[in-house]
Amino acid sequence: MSNLIEKLNWRYATKKYDPSKIVPTEKVERVLEAIRLSASSSGLQPYQVLLSTNRDLRAQLLPAAWNQAQVVDASHLLVFAAWDTYTRERINKAFDLVNEQRGFKNEGWEGYRKLLLEQYPARDPETNFQHAAKQAYLAVGTALAAAADEGVDATPMEGFDPVKVDEILKLGEKGLRSVVLLPLGYRAADGDWLAPLKKVRRSREEFVIEYA
Amino acid sequence: MSNLIEKLNWRYATKKYDPSKIVPTEKVERVLEAIRLSASSSGLQPYQVLLSTNRDLRAQLLPAAWNQAQVVDASHLLVFAAWDTYTRERINKAFDLVNEQRGFKNEGWEGYRKLLLEQYPARDPETNFQHAAKQAYLAVGTALAAAADEGVDATPMEGFDPVKVDEILKLGEKGLRSVVLLPLGYRAADGDWLAPLKKVRRSREEFVIEYA
Repeated sequence: MSNLIEKLNWRYATKKYDPSKIVPTEKVERVLEAIRLSASSSGLQPYQVLLSTNRDLRAQLLPAAWNQAQVVDASHLLVFAAWDTYTRERINKAFDLVNEQRGFKNEGWEGYRKLLLEQYPARDPETNFQHAAKQAYLAVGTALAAAADEGVDATPMEGFDPVKVDEILKLGEKGLRSVVLLPLGYRAADGDWLAPLKKVRRSREEFVIEYA
Repeated sequence: MSNLIEKLNWRYATKKYDPSKIVPTEKVERVLEAIRLSASSSGLQPYQVLLSTNRDLRAQLLPAAWNQAQVVDASHLLVFAAWDTYTRERINKAFDLVNEQRGFKNEGWEGYRKLLLEQYPARDPETNFQHAAKQAYLAVGTALAAAADEGVDATPMEGFDPVKVDEILKLGEKGLRSVVLLPLGYRAADGDWLAPLKKVRRSREEFVIEYA
């Protein structure tokens, strides 16, 4: 068994955190770096990660997160917030960054930019947001692996009112919409009903369909 | 720097595979196991992973994948296919599996089952599919980390015609819709225009918004 598989077996959606245990900054930074390195469609990275250590702010989010205490008790809270739509400006900024970082312009890449500029901003914002949200979910999957790799507990949460969270964090004015909350911290295993229970997944045979 | 961060820097969306290099079965199985262990909303795992080593079958997919040769040249092809909707049967099967594996019934869990049975099947199928697709994207993010951890190249691909892919793989009759293709194999770095180019991401400062 690889080390990563062991760690993925170790992780679970932590229901109760020990509020006295703080995740060291270097670990949080490595989780953030893993997220930043995540793959995304056309490399647009169409989301931002919000980071809060402030428990007063997070207490404001609590009612919007159906009073799930992880939001406050965890050491850190990450919020994945996707672009509300694809705009010319956002697409151009991403393509310009690639040119700037690589130090040259490439005809194929510029053709691809044109294609996206023709297609994406013309689509309805909801379609664009849903596409951006999927890229954020992909990054959540990378973040969960990275947190487990660091021995840091994490809870991917969809159970919240995104409209209220967006209001509290003033995301509308940034052109963002919250999609997933991800508390990071250390489990209070004694008080967590889920901690002792078996991780359940469909079997490999039921889960994978082989085409010979 | 952690090992995982190094590996995430090593990975890239491989554009050209060496068709003569085959990924050992135990590595493919560990990537599949990482996917199987991925987190999903309410633990429903609302997707299947299709696995093909058959290059004749994959050649049929090629036109539907805009003739991107990775689909055939890679050692293995994974297809992430999400549930086309949430049904009572699918929800019950997932909750029953949890009870069976844990060996007891829990009142809170049964209440939660009722909630999902009331809410999910009544929603329109497209909303349910989009939600299921997001869980598959999360698993793609875990798969990319696991493949990198194994030193296996991978290419997350949205650039294909899902309707045609679904037809070829007969996914409709399984109640599935393809969402992401993920070839696995080994890069033919000499022939890959992307291999030598710098990985570009927004800076940590631009990417992370801190709420103090």
